[in-house]
Amino acid sequence: MKSALHKVLHPIAGRPMLLHLLASVGELAPERQVVVVGAGRDQVEKAVAGTGAIVAVQEQQLGTGHAVAQAHDALAGFAGDVLILYGDVPLVSSATMRAMLDRLSRGDEPRAVVLGFRPDDAAAYGRIIADGQGIIEKMVEFKDASEAERAVTLCNSGLMAVRATDLFVLLDQIGNDNAAGEYYLPDIVMLPGATSAVIETDAWEVAGVNSRIELAGVEAMWQARRRIDAMREGVTLVAPETVFFSHDTVLGRDVVVEPNVVFGPGVTVADDVTIHAFSHLEGATVASGAGIGPYARLRPGADIGPKAKVGNFVEIKKATLGEGAKANHLSYIGDASVGAGANIGAGTITCNYDGFFKYKTEIGAGAFIGSNSALVAPAVIGDGAIVAAGSVVTRPVEADSLCLVRAEQMGKVGWAAAFRDRMKAKKAAK
Amino acid sequence: MKSALHKVLHPIAGRPMLLHLLASVGELAPERQVVVVGAGRDQVEKAVAGTGAIVAVQEQQLGTGHAVAQAHDALAGFAGDVLILYGDVPLVSSATMRAMLDRLSRGDEPRAVVLGFRPDDAAAYGRIIADGQGIIEKMVEFKDASEAERAVTLCNSGLMAVRATDLFVLLDQIGNDNAAGEYYLPDIVMLPGATSAVIETDAWEVAGVNSRIELAGVEAMWQARRRIDAMREGVTLVAPETVFFSHDTVLGRDVVVEPNVVFGPGVTVADDVTIHAFSHLEGATVASGAGIGPYARLRPGADIGPKAKVGNFVEIKKATLGEGAKANHLSYIGDASVGAGANIGAGTITCNYDGFFKYKTEIGAGAFIGSNSALVAPAVIGDGAIVAAGSVVTRPVEADSLCLVRAEQMGKVGWAAAFRDRMKAKKAAK
Amino acid sequence: MKSALHKVLHPIAGRPMLLHLLASVGELAPERQVVVVGAGRDQVEKAVAGTGAIVAVQEQQLGTGHAVAQAHDALAGFAGDVLILYGDVPLVSSATMRAMLDRLSRGDEPRAVVLGFRPDDAAAYGRIIADGQGIIEKMVEFKDASEAERAVTLCNSGLMAVRATDLFVLLDQIGNDNAAGEYYLPDIVMLPGATSAVIETDAWEVAGVNSRIELAGVEAMWQARRRIDAMREGVTLVAPETVFFSHDTVLGRDVVVEPNVVFGPGVTVADDVTIHAFSHLEGATVASGAGIGPYARLRPGADIGPKAKVGNFVEIKKATLGEGAKANHLSYIGDASVGAGANIGAGTITCNYDGFFKYKTEIGAGAFIGSNSALVAPAVIGDGAIVAAGSVVTRPVEADSLCLVRAEQMGKVGWAAAFRDRMKAKKAAK
Repeated sequence: MKSALHKVLHPIAGRPMLLHLLASVGELAPERQVVVVGAGRDQVEKAVAGTGAIVAVQEQQLGTGHAVAQAHDALAGFAGDVLILYGDVPLVSSATMRAMLDRLSRGDEPRAVVLGFRPDDAAAYGRIIADGQGIIEKMVEFKDASEAERAVTLCNSGLMAVRATDLFVLLDQIGNDNAAGEYYLPDIVMLPGATSAVIETDAWEVAGVNSRIELAGVEAMWQARRRIDAMREGVTLVAPETVFFSHDTVLGRDVVVEPNVVFGPGVTVADDVTIHAFSHLEGATVASGAGIGPYARLRPGADIGPKAKVGNFVEIKKATLGEGAKANHLSYIGDASVGAGANIGAGTITCNYDGFFKYKTEIGAGAFIGSNSALVAPAVIGDGAIVAAGSVVTRPVEADSLCLVRAEQMGKVGWAAAFRDRMKAKKAAK
Repeated sequence: MKSALHKVLHPIAGRPMLLHLLASVGELAPERQVVVVGAGRDQVEKAVAGTGAIVAVQEQQLGTGHAVAQAHDALAGFAGDVLILYGDVPLVSSATMRAMLDRLSRGDEPRAVVLGFRPDDAAAYGRIIADGQGIIEKMVEFKDASEAERAVTLCNSGLMAVRATDLFVLLDQIGNDNAAGEYYLPDIVMLPGATSAVIETDAWEVAGVNSRIELAGVEAMWQARRRIDAMREGVTLVAPETVFFSHDTVLGRDVVVEPNVVFGPGVTVADDVTIHAFSHLEGATVASGAGIGPYARLRPGADIGPKAKVGNFVEIKKATLGEGAKANHLSYIGDASVGAGANIGAGTITCNYDGFFKYKTEIGAGAFIGSNSALVAPAVIGDGAIVAAGSVVTRPVEADSLCLVRAEQMGKVGWAAAFRDRMKAKKAAK
Repeated sequence: MKSALHKVLHPIAGRPMLLHLLASVGELAPERQVVVVGAGRDQVEKAVAGTGAIVAVQEQQLGTGHAVAQAHDALAGFAGDVLILYGDVPLVSSATMRAMLDRLSRGDEPRAVVLGFRPDDAAAYGRIIADGQGIIEKMVEFKDASEAERAVTLCNSGLMAVRATDLFVLLDQIGNDNAAGEYYLPDIVMLPGATSAVIETDAWEVAGVNSRIELAGVEAMWQARRRIDAMREGVTLVAPETVFFSHDTVLGRDVVVEPNVVFGPGVTVADDVTIHAFSHLEGATVASGAGIGPYARLRPGADIGPKAKVGNFVEIKKATLGEGAKANHLSYIGDASVGAGANIGAGTITCNYDGFFKYKTEIGAGAFIGSNSALVAPAVIGDGAIVAAGSVVTRPVEADSLCLVRAEQMGKVGWAAAFRDRMKAKKAAK
């Protein structure tokens, strides 16, 4: 990855890929979750804090089998089924995980269940030779495979389910007598004494990330699937390929998303909302019938009421807009509450920061804030008050009153003409 | 569609798909246009108002043949040719429609002309078995087709041309003796007594919309074709896939469109205009040599003069910019006229709205509006006048004069240092 | 191209395609560079000024052989090797050029080296029939080719390397006895007396531009390759297909580029920088740890210091931001220096232009510029000074002082309620 960031912490759809995997695992309500990490332990520990996962450390990198063996202590006393997943294979679904566990306890109760897939281009993947019932006859690395074996399209994803009571016994039996001197996890599959089974999943689920190019590829797959889901759920995406979702974006029915919209984490949008082109939403809630953008930026804590409008070049941060309120042009509304039906004129700024603390602005229902006004927080503008254009408001404005902060207009007749003559001469002299 | 909006009213390139179809039909100057609608009649009636189309209602949904039969009264006394089209198959061109009608009256004068197509993936489409002259031997649903019939790649689009004098007679002869109990329009083709013919068109023309995914697909096809046309006509699209046209966008020669530009309805751009990245134009006219964006938003009524410039984070609404006028940064110009060569400083706002009415701002030729000014409409700034930065202008400004609205600058020496000390202490105390 | 601009001057990645080619040629340190031009000579001469290339004019368009012959005088006295390239085939790499020259002087020292390629769809390209050693047996136009010759996938790009001492002698020997009456350059290859050789390159390198559609295609290829390179070098592109590079963009390691970012010419970005969505950078330098956007526009001369932040709807032009300085919202900072740690409030404008000249604004380290302020240049704001919100600053502000430019706040109790009643009545009356 050529990165100071641990590979498994690079994000997909705004969430570290490892956390995608743990979220899917979480849907199975596992008794224990163990993350085995080599280098970059600190970063990973910080990232999984709060997920309930235990971090086990692999001091030396002696192969996948060795890595799994490091979970031994963390699984002490655990007698259930173990899913072995990879932090850099983040998209595998909980349904597939469940299918692996189900197969482990079904019928012939295989010793291990391997997850196979059939890629478009099998390339140099290891092959799984299995019978009609999915009982594995052979696992073979591509380089060691015969022509006939290479013709098999079922490939090994590396993911596996094994009983905890078997796992470490099996790992003890595999050796590192190979060119790299590593202990290979797949070697446990063909150990004598029991059979193992393969089940299949779609190739996209087991796509791995070993470079930023693959990271972009997995992101693209995730986004493509999410867009399809959104459209199925009743969202119009005018140009689906230009809309970028976060892992947790929630959109209602008859939401229309125009081209070029980016969703950061934490966005919920109700029914009948149009999100116009070039909008960027993050940590925001948008109620039914609201209109967002174009060029609207909703930041965390933006709470846009029913039928409210946020227009172009408007930034909303930690602020509520009441029903039908409007902030249509070139404004910054931060740390504020805007009452129902209030109208925020173009160029309005809530001055919420003094370099040390942030302060709140309260704008009453039906208030009208004239264009180019600056509301110096803490600020209170009463219901139905009018702030004249260009005002810098520093004291509370009473409900239904007019607030005016403005110097006298002066005119100097002919001044501009004289100025131009002077400047033209100066320019000519240069 | 999972939508409260009638399927045929979902837009393609900013226009309801039904209106795309009616626009193409309109090019044939039809004597009558009948739109048969089941549920959602009100929405459809409103949408076709003004198109000259008559709405006929299909109370019960008893199949495509039954739907067409509902046009009976609306076509009373009409003895010409009838084109049967589908509101959710919006891209069929007038040329193809004309070809269907031409075939109907040519040579053997078939009873019906069916529009066929050859999709990339014939999937489960009904097949048309025809001889070398296009005389139809059999129409067969995919599910009823033999292997040999399925191998035929010519599929039935459902679109048809029939003489009005034949149509309702034929419809009377078809039954509903099938699993769904429906009257199928294609059944008229093979009724005894006459032959029918097929003509072919490109698959994209008969793409149907039955889901938001297909809607996005048809939009994408429309956009892809429009982009190719634009480039053929002498427009540079740096990244064609990121430019979104409206159904009526008009662009001149040597127009350069940078990446990520969205055209809403009603835009006309003359020759030699560059539209920079991230611009959004709607209802706007742009004259030759003008420069738009990046991040320019032109709204309805924006009329940008020759060699004028609209820069970043600037919104223009119902306003004319004279030749060579400039509004380059962070401004809102609404309900205004800006004279030739005038310069609108950064952060200028025309305050055009008082919460009830909109008022006009007139800025004279060669005027210079200082940055961060607010022009409270109705406002008149004379030719060649200069408005000093930060002014809130409420009275007329004489031509060639300087207008200044500004309070005195006061300084409190050391205040900032003392403030910081106080605030740091407060922050530490927290 | 349907363009007033000469074909070879249409840009790829922000640089005229001819200059792409000359830049690659330049890597070989050629003794002479000759550009042969027919119509549009003035445009081309202007474009190549400063590249060291000599322009030779082809008055009449008598074929490619005739065009090359026009370089005769410009190459007088030159006895080295000549590369014959095409201005509308801009992507051929210097490595490929070098390979052509190397082949010319290797082993059998062929008379000419032709650059071949194998396109996905060989379409109507001329074919090269060569033996196993790349010695050319026949060059044949597609229209004259036999079935067997058409089955050959090696096509002629038209690019060639020939010794200067041979070139004009050979050109004298070819005729124009063909339908078009033109002198064809490839005819020199098969002249008797010596053999010629072919070497191969990837098809994308010899993609030609004969329409704006092909221009877009070559741009897309260039961008696709550049994106891959960026990711390989340690840049995360969340959605690579939405990022547009310039020919000279330089990005550090662990740079994250969010969707929809456009790089104009002259951008250098250090390590650990995040460029958020919808940003547009041109002629800008960004230091390590800085955050850019979303919706940031950096224009030429923007120099963003370490850990500085440029936020949404902010334009920076010819201005330095010191370490950790912030301009987060709706500002225009032009012709300015902003000290380390300074905070530029939302809606701040540097008023740098009086209609004739531009003036500089200097903002000291740790200064705090209140929101919606206008700094009228030339302006000096001392270190640690605070400018109160909404100030129009016209005189210098002392370090650590407070600057306040503000009128008194006035309130008219009940005025707004009365105004509304009046206006509602007026609206009702209409």
